[in-house]
Amino acid sequence: MKNQAESNSSATRILSQTAEVDAASVQPFPASQKIFVAGSQADIRVPMREISLDDTPTDFGGEVNAPVRVYDTSGPYTDPAVDIDVRRGLPDVRSAWIEARADTELLGANSSGFTRQRLDDAKLAHLRFDHARAPRRARAGANVTQMHYARKGIITPEMEFIAIRENMSLQQARELGVLDQQHPGDAFGAAIPEEITPEFVRQEVARGRAIIPANINHPELEPMIIGRNFLVKINGNIGNSALGSSIEEEVEKLTWGTRWGADTVMDLSTGKNIHETREWIIRNAHVPIGTVPIYQALEKVGGVAEDLTWDIFRDTLIEQAEQGVDYFTIHAGVLLRYVPLTAKRVTGIVSRGGSIMAKWCLAHHRESFLYTHFEDICDIMKAYDVSFSLGDGLRPGAIADANDEAQFGELETLGELTKIAWKHDVQTMIEGPGHVPMHLIKENMDKQLRECGEAPFYTLGPLTTDIAPGYDHITSGIGAAMIGWYGCAMLCYVTPKEHLGLPNKEDVKEGIITYKIAAHAADLAKGHPGAQLRDNALSKARFEFRWEDQFNLGLDPDTARAYHDETLPKESAKVAHFCSMCGPKFCSMKITQEVRDYAKGQEAAAAESGEQLVTMVDVEAEMREKARQFREQGAEIYHKV
Amino acid sequence: MKNQAESNSSATRILSQTAEVDAASVQPFPASQKIFVAGSQADIRVPMREISLDDTPTDFGGEVNAPVRVYDTSGPYTDPAVDIDVRRGLPDVRSAWIEARADTELLGANSSGFTRQRLDDAKLAHLRFDHARAPRRARAGANVTQMHYARKGIITPEMEFIAIRENMSLQQARELGVLDQQHPGDAFGAAIPEEITPEFVRQEVARGRAIIPANINHPELEPMIIGRNFLVKINGNIGNSALGSSIEEEVEKLTWGTRWGADTVMDLSTGKNIHETREWIIRNAHVPIGTVPIYQALEKVGGVAEDLTWDIFRDTLIEQAEQGVDYFTIHAGVLLRYVPLTAKRVTGIVSRGGSIMAKWCLAHHRESFLYTHFEDICDIMKAYDVSFSLGDGLRPGAIADANDEAQFGELETLGELTKIAWKHDVQTMIEGPGHVPMHLIKENMDKQLRECGEAPFYTLGPLTTDIAPGYDHITSGIGAAMIGWYGCAMLCYVTPKEHLGLPNKEDVKEGIITYKIAAHAADLAKGHPGAQLRDNALSKARFEFRWEDQFNLGLDPDTARAYHDETLPKESAKVAHFCSMCGPKFCSMKITQEVRDYAKGQEAAAAESGEQLVTMVDVEAEMREKARQFREQGAEIYHKV
Repeated sequence: MKNQAESNSSATRILSQTAEVDAASVQPFPASQKIFVAGSQADIRVPMREISLDDTPTDFGGEVNAPVRVYDTSGPYTDPAVDIDVRRGLPDVRSAWIEARADTELLGANSSGFTRQRLDDAKLAHLRFDHARAPRRARAGANVTQMHYARKGIITPEMEFIAIRENMSLQQARELGVLDQQHPGDAFGAAIPEEITPEFVRQEVARGRAIIPANINHPELEPMIIGRNFLVKINGNIGNSALGSSIEEEVEKLTWGTRWGADTVMDLSTGKNIHETREWIIRNAHVPIGTVPIYQALEKVGGVAEDLTWDIFRDTLIEQAEQGVDYFTIHAGVLLRYVPLTAKRVTGIVSRGGSIMAKWCLAHHRESFLYTHFEDICDIMKAYDVSFSLGDGLRPGAIADANDEAQFGELETLGELTKIAWKHDVQTMIEGPGHVPMHLIKENMDKQLRECGEAPFYTLGPLTTDIAPGYDHITSGIGAAMIGWYGCAMLCYVTPKEHLGLPNKEDVKEGIITYKIAAHAADLAKGHPGAQLRDNALSKARFEFRWEDQFNLGLDPDTARAYHDETLPKESAKVAHFCSMCGPKFCSMKITQEVRDYAKGQEAAAAESGEQLVTMVDVEAEMREKARQFREQGAEIYHKV
Repeated sequence: MKNQAESNSSATRILSQTAEVDAASVQPFPASQKIFVAGSQADIRVPMREISLDDTPTDFGGEVNAPVRVYDTSGPYTDPAVDIDVRRGLPDVRSAWIEARADTELLGANSSGFTRQRLDDAKLAHLRFDHARAPRRARAGANVTQMHYARKGIITPEMEFIAIRENMSLQQARELGVLDQQHPGDAFGAAIPEEITPEFVRQEVARGRAIIPANINHPELEPMIIGRNFLVKINGNIGNSALGSSIEEEVEKLTWGTRWGADTVMDLSTGKNIHETREWIIRNAHVPIGTVPIYQALEKVGGVAEDLTWDIFRDTLIEQAEQGVDYFTIHAGVLLRYVPLTAKRVTGIVSRGGSIMAKWCLAHHRESFLYTHFEDICDIMKAYDVSFSLGDGLRPGAIADANDEAQFGELETLGELTKIAWKHDVQTMIEGPGHVPMHLIKENMDKQLRECGEAPFYTLGPLTTDIAPGYDHITSGIGAAMIGWYGCAMLCYVTPKEHLGLPNKEDVKEGIITYKIAAHAADLAKGHPGAQLRDNALSKARFEFRWEDQFNLGLDPDTARAYHDETLPKESAKVAHFCSMCGPKFCSMKITQEVRDYAKGQEAAAAESGEQLVTMVDVEAEMREKARQFREQGAEIYHKV
């Protein structure tokens, strides 16, 4: 065994490592506590992170600041009560719910021939995850999708879990009176309610406007939802390629990415041992996992696109569905007639899946098996509740190619396919571009909503310019924030390494934080109820020089603290009533406090002198009058010249 | 002398250093040549950077790729023909133009009492820049602003220089046929012409829609323009505070910031030796320098805002105008009646200048001397051609405070002041927020255009959320790109250290690149003629695996190359027809080439078989027909279920 392990370079590290994932990923967030909000049954426990705040300093009023609850994607990894062991996988969240529905069965053997072949291969033993679950499948004739239940009027535990999660303890915030201060948003026709109820979740899933990616073979999952009337989500990609990275590295990127905010993770592996890598990832994933099955299918035919067949692809879908993949990117909209439309583009076809299918179509001069077997695929999806992520194989890879005939033609086809998927109660979202200049972004969103009946849109960026390799998290973060505002439900992150190389851990974090910013900026602009709570709390902390609170309420407390300490490293500086930018004399915050004291003083003086209570409005009115008089004098100066 | 130098910590490094600025700032860009496009007279030489490209590889067609010209803000520092010596300052560009206008005179002594006092102080000798220029001022009664000339119908050499610079050799690009491929933009009522002519520059300056910040005491300046019908500009801030950084560091940040793209630089120093620091900066600046004179005035009264007087402020304006500052931020819109409106804000007043003036107004219970002496200030501005940057002292410092009464009240006053400045032919731009959620950004732009008669808007960000300290270059880059698209003329950069500490060189670069992205994304969305050229060239290079060209056409070739080399360090990988992300088998670019070959093959086969020339449209039509038939068959499948 040892010899074998040594002979196999990368994957062996899984075995040789300790039971813990890297320390950085399991460290609790500063001043934060993982809490669980209870649902209607004991096993609905919705995780949130509660950030404790200091009291306001006495000279700013001295009040107590209520802790702030934030949406928590970090899973059991930041729960001190959970003993993490990547070799055993995560605790089970959903099996009891799935079993209670009594419409599935555990299979004695895997249905995929490829899976059985890998399991039978003794040479792969050292790569294998030891605690694989027995595969589960819908009973004959049953449809086990959340959409199916929703349409039957059933509120599943998953839906209730999500309602509590999305609602983010709004009631509590309302009681504390901190919900008032929020700008009404502009949501471009979205139907965001004042409160997210389980019934609202059900309705949205039933009409296809939201999806809950939750394969019955992925019970470790903490349910989440993707839809324009919910918080904007982000996806982080991981995955090895033929050129690098090990299973261990991929699991580490998963825990690292979700720590910083990834709501779902796509495993885009194209290298060695895709099957085994995926098993490790899913068993250690508390977030939905998406894949692009055609990548693995292509590996199975030695990388020759034209040798792909429906049978190989079908077996790959089943293989992955029984492992627990929650959504599949399927490029079924790459039709033969669209392919020549890409020939005159600056960058042709840039989607890997799209180009594989285009090549197949040309080689066979017929529509792809993804399109012709689309309903067969639906049958597989509904037996495991795998959601569609209908791939945009013809997305533009350059600003020049944005919103062209090929792209929009494919989008129309994706709209047709959405309706077919919905006929089968299969949950469906739609993938979008790509590279699009700012002024053409809204057209994408509007067309997608129209063509696809408001099915959730899931876009990569879009990148708003091509000229900044090394900074494409930023070129795309701009577009992502905008399309999120316009109605996009999930934003696929882009790292600084986009177009250049494989992201390392720091790149993953940089990409995730950028996209959290984009998603949150979109939530604010849409006026999502309660979204502004965290902004208000952080800005109040900033104003009151509660430095620790400012760091801790931020998306990345570590970096904020480190940046602060570069200039003012001493602990005393974290309670100082000034900062390094302006120094003690120039502090505008300090002066503002004097303005407030002045305003209060005016009120107090008026009260003392026996006059009626002078309100701020009165003070303002008085000042207006004084200012008016003054301006009249001042105005003379202007006439004298 | 040596002892004195040693006793004075930071500033002495200016003297002890060699004649060169840091090597990183003077290194020429890879594959780039500094060229000068000639104007109508010999001394109009407009710098541009020309990036040479490799030929397209034979298997992609083998054509020659024309070099790409880009706007060059890096000044003489990247000109190998110039011998840089920060102790002597930069070469003179404009003195002959200024002298030829015969409306100025060199003064025998400085007009500012404070300047004379500093000059007389022997203890400051070691800090002083040795080659100070004699101050120049308008002759009695003369108005020397570019706006004044423009309104008299005069096209100055500055205007011609700018026309050539903004036009970016469009004619050449047109001749090469590379201008066609550009999306028509959506410029929200801007009036961007197809070609920037000197007469157009004159017209825009005459009507106040653009400014040319160019003090007659700053002849080292390479003229540039700020206005919504020109390329969007960015500003980088430098400046020491009481807590840190030396003169040398500030000059280094200047050269570093302009290397990466700063169009103007603001010196926001509030620490020691502001006067001397500024002299070093201006004498070494080829870009306009802006300041906030109230900062220095406050230093002069020991930091006690209420002790500020018009006389001290006036002397400060003259002091700085005679050094060559090109634009002054003046917070003249902070009126007494607006101040109480900020008391209930989450973060009150966050502008340093705004809070200083608010404090003064409250202490004296009268309008500030900035407002009451506004026309006196205009008289100073027009004697040196210093442009106004009317400060937004009441800008929101938190999402919660965006677009409130205080902010918009001040903006209305700035509109009134703009009209007064224009009466004096003083060039004027308007500063804007701040922290604004995405959906409230456009209201800012629209109101500014309306209230201020289309005077250029110059905004800080805006930051679209408060929750990401450490990443505010990104939270604000999103807002900056959007407001640039909507019509903002210049974007003031924000670094990752915003709210936390003083930016170092890496932070300056990160902020500048982020803002170059925002400005360029805005140019693309506005449809600025030729803006897409660089995107197209870079994307074509990317598609053709011309790695070096992809790096070199980017905003930051060094980072792009370094990221690529992290995964594929070998030189051979820079000509490889695949990359680390997908490996050799999965390359969509390669497959696209096959699609093109296929499309060409169809044409060729048709031609050979004696049929009429089959165009792409025909191929498409044929495919549509085949696909239609196929769908009809396929459609049956859908009905069978």
